[in-house]
Amino acid sequence: MGGKRQLKLGALLHGVGGGTSTWRHPDAITDASVNFGLYKQWVRKAEEGKLDFIFIADGLYINEKSIPHFLNRFEPITILSALAAVSTHIGLVGTLSTSYSEPFTVARQFGSLDNISGGRAGWNVVTSPLEGSALNYGRKQHPDHATRYRIAAEFLEVTRGLWDSWEDDAFVRNKETGQFFDPDKMHALNHEGEFFSVKGPLNIQRSKQGHPVIFQAGSSEAGRNFASRAADAVFTGQETIEEAREFYQDIKRRAAGFGRNPDELLIFPGIGPIIGSTEEEAERKYREVAELVTVEEALNYLGRFFDHHDFSQYPLDEPFPDIGDLGKNSFQANTDRIKRIAREQNLTLREVALRTATPRGNFIGTPETVADRIQEWFETGAADGFIIHAATPRGLEEFVDHVVPILQARGLFRTEYESDTLRGNLGLPVPENRYTRARALKV
Amino acid sequence: MGGKRQLKLGALLHGVGGGTSTWRHPDAITDASVNFGLYKQWVRKAEEGKLDFIFIADGLYINEKSIPHFLNRFEPITILSALAAVSTHIGLVGTLSTSYSEPFTVARQFGSLDNISGGRAGWNVVTSPLEGSALNYGRKQHPDHATRYRIAAEFLEVTRGLWDSWEDDAFVRNKETGQFFDPDKMHALNHEGEFFSVKGPLNIQRSKQGHPVIFQAGSSEAGRNFASRAADAVFTGQETIEEAREFYQDIKRRAAGFGRNPDELLIFPGIGPIIGSTEEEAERKYREVAELVTVEEALNYLGRFFDHHDFSQYPLDEPFPDIGDLGKNSFQANTDRIKRIAREQNLTLREVALRTATPRGNFIGTPETVADRIQEWFETGAADGFIIHAATPRGLEEFVDHVVPILQARGLFRTEYESDTLRGNLGLPVPENRYTRARALKV
Repeated sequence: MGGKRQLKLGALLHGVGGGTSTWRHPDAITDASVNFGLYKQWVRKAEEGKLDFIFIADGLYINEKSIPHFLNRFEPITILSALAAVSTHIGLVGTLSTSYSEPFTVARQFGSLDNISGGRAGWNVVTSPLEGSALNYGRKQHPDHATRYRIAAEFLEVTRGLWDSWEDDAFVRNKETGQFFDPDKMHALNHEGEFFSVKGPLNIQRSKQGHPVIFQAGSSEAGRNFASRAADAVFTGQETIEEAREFYQDIKRRAAGFGRNPDELLIFPGIGPIIGSTEEEAERKYREVAELVTVEEALNYLGRFFDHHDFSQYPLDEPFPDIGDLGKNSFQANTDRIKRIAREQNLTLREVALRTATPRGNFIGTPETVADRIQEWFETGAADGFIIHAATPRGLEEFVDHVVPILQARGLFRTEYESDTLRGNLGLPVPENRYTRARALKV
Repeated sequence: MGGKRQLKLGALLHGVGGGTSTWRHPDAITDASVNFGLYKQWVRKAEEGKLDFIFIADGLYINEKSIPHFLNRFEPITILSALAAVSTHIGLVGTLSTSYSEPFTVARQFGSLDNISGGRAGWNVVTSPLEGSALNYGRKQHPDHATRYRIAAEFLEVTRGLWDSWEDDAFVRNKETGQFFDPDKMHALNHEGEFFSVKGPLNIQRSKQGHPVIFQAGSSEAGRNFASRAADAVFTGQETIEEAREFYQDIKRRAAGFGRNPDELLIFPGIGPIIGSTEEEAERKYREVAELVTVEEALNYLGRFFDHHDFSQYPLDEPFPDIGDLGKNSFQANTDRIKRIAREQNLTLREVALRTATPRGNFIGTPETVADRIQEWFETGAADGFIIHAATPRGLEEFVDHVVPILQARGLFRTEYESDTLRGNLGLPVPENRYTRARALKV
């Protein structure tokens, strides 16, 4: 395969699934979101397929309208750490919010996961879209969208500083001389900022990948700038190849604008492939999934993006109602997109709700068709890789068994791991320790 | 063995050890505190010995005077979760501070660990002794001792409430009817207290042991009351059997005073056995450990309990200096005890420092001697069980291989796990869900 650019692949492990009704699928295991045996099987399957990473999403607020997976699921740090012990090469990426946590704790937990796994951790930095989160954390108000991103930027800066507390050769551990560490290579951060004040040092060393890989999933203006400046990877949700290309180019351009090498920021659209042995079988499988969702459930699911707005009050078959700026402080990019498409395509409320709850996507068909689409997106500037979220209960297994071998045969995807760290497999550089760099510059 | 009262045993997994110089022991693995392979071996060894639990301690502040293990170690939630995946019956207990964390996050992480492990989690609730912790969490001041315990009490109350968010039969998961959960069995906590305001519900179910087992390790007046009222187990550090009996009786009496069954609060002194094939070999092994510590290191270690006070300014061979109330807001019970013994036994600074850094303990000798002492403490009202912290690098292995079989032969300790939950093995009841109980009372 030589120097040919290689596709990167992740798998979203998402319990009973991200939809309202996927748990009702005949093949669904209904306690999947709290079934550790199943998560173990999934991570092993993903590693058998030589995937780069698994991904665990998160949320900090539920109510009786939340979808099944959100109501009752494993917390990311704990499930990733458990999966670290039953895997050897695959990356372990999870969501953790900067709006409701402390940098010292987050730096420690991801730093510890990174050491336990031998350099396979990744952190999806989110700002928490749900207004209700504030109520679980004793806050009067959810911070506004812009403030959340200012907090996130400072939070990440502090976390990165803490990860550099110890230079890579700080621990001398010389039994003869009695020197355990070199005090010149231990560094307090002494950060005093707008939102955080953190002294340091952190009480754990860097792993062999230096820092956990930083993912970001926001696609609003603030989210794009944050990702372009500070992330290693972006998890996005563009539906068409045209939108995906536009997003891809925008992010790469912004990264270059921040003085970065755009190749060191990887873009991962999330896709939900549905695979059949024929096109007809795949279509049948899609319909089977789509028909699980009633229009009531679809309206409820839609409401989640708009502050749990009650859409059942509007006529179903009239144009999508005017609901103003509802939800703008939560899922800004999503709500803007839903309203724009409704307007442009003149959709009814019913159509918007059903499309949102069971997006059809572009990756339905035979393994060859799905591989073709992946190749097209990858080779025409729409993606550096993909995050696979199984749209059917056995979707991950089918993808690994049937699509991955085609991508491998075409020379697009690895047949063996290149590295045992996540950065190594993603082709991302190990961040140099800031103090080691400063020392090198002085000499 | 019938209904005979059974000894309970835990193992503190403590990397390079809790002393200043244990890492210099000829058998020591110097990166033990960040060596996951070694932690895996240890948990498997402990499970081979049918121990009830492993225990991970913690701290939130380091500086250049901290002991080696504290400088660079795994964070408890992550290492416990990883160890959950490579064990099947042993309990997984870890320290987490109520002074620098959020109840919603702590309830979730321990709740998730409890589900991942199938009901084997335990939480050692601490209030963080170290003043410096405040500096890593953007606080002007470390809360005073009394306030920390008020915070801890409310924190634990909130956490317990969140763990009951879902009644045990709340998740119906009926594919036919489309009912995923019973909304009458989902409960928001709506807590509004002095320190916390938390709405809930928690987004994870109870495990089959109901709640993680609550450990407490404080032995000040406030710590004793907190433990007696709210804990399932106490980790203590009494040095003599007389002190241990006094402590044991005091805690059991307090528990009864709070209306509890004293048998449902287990008391675990921490002990560091040193085992030899003869008494002489054991003594030689103790001296080998004690001689690793220089008097400078011992002074530095002693200083840790007294706000990192610099004891090197005092003459070594004169009576222990008068340092007033230094450290009272951190390790209150420890500092009181050190000063009292120094006074009563008229010890010099050198003697206090060396004894503190390498306590000799009462569990040095042949396996039979160690088993005898354990039996004596257990049968004469000084302990319900013990937490073994290895005083030598191979101490856990030696304890499991040589002492456990004697305890088993004497009918004091199990030969097979009774249960696959931690509560089950400790003989502690599963806490009834508060809402289920309220419902039962109404009927």
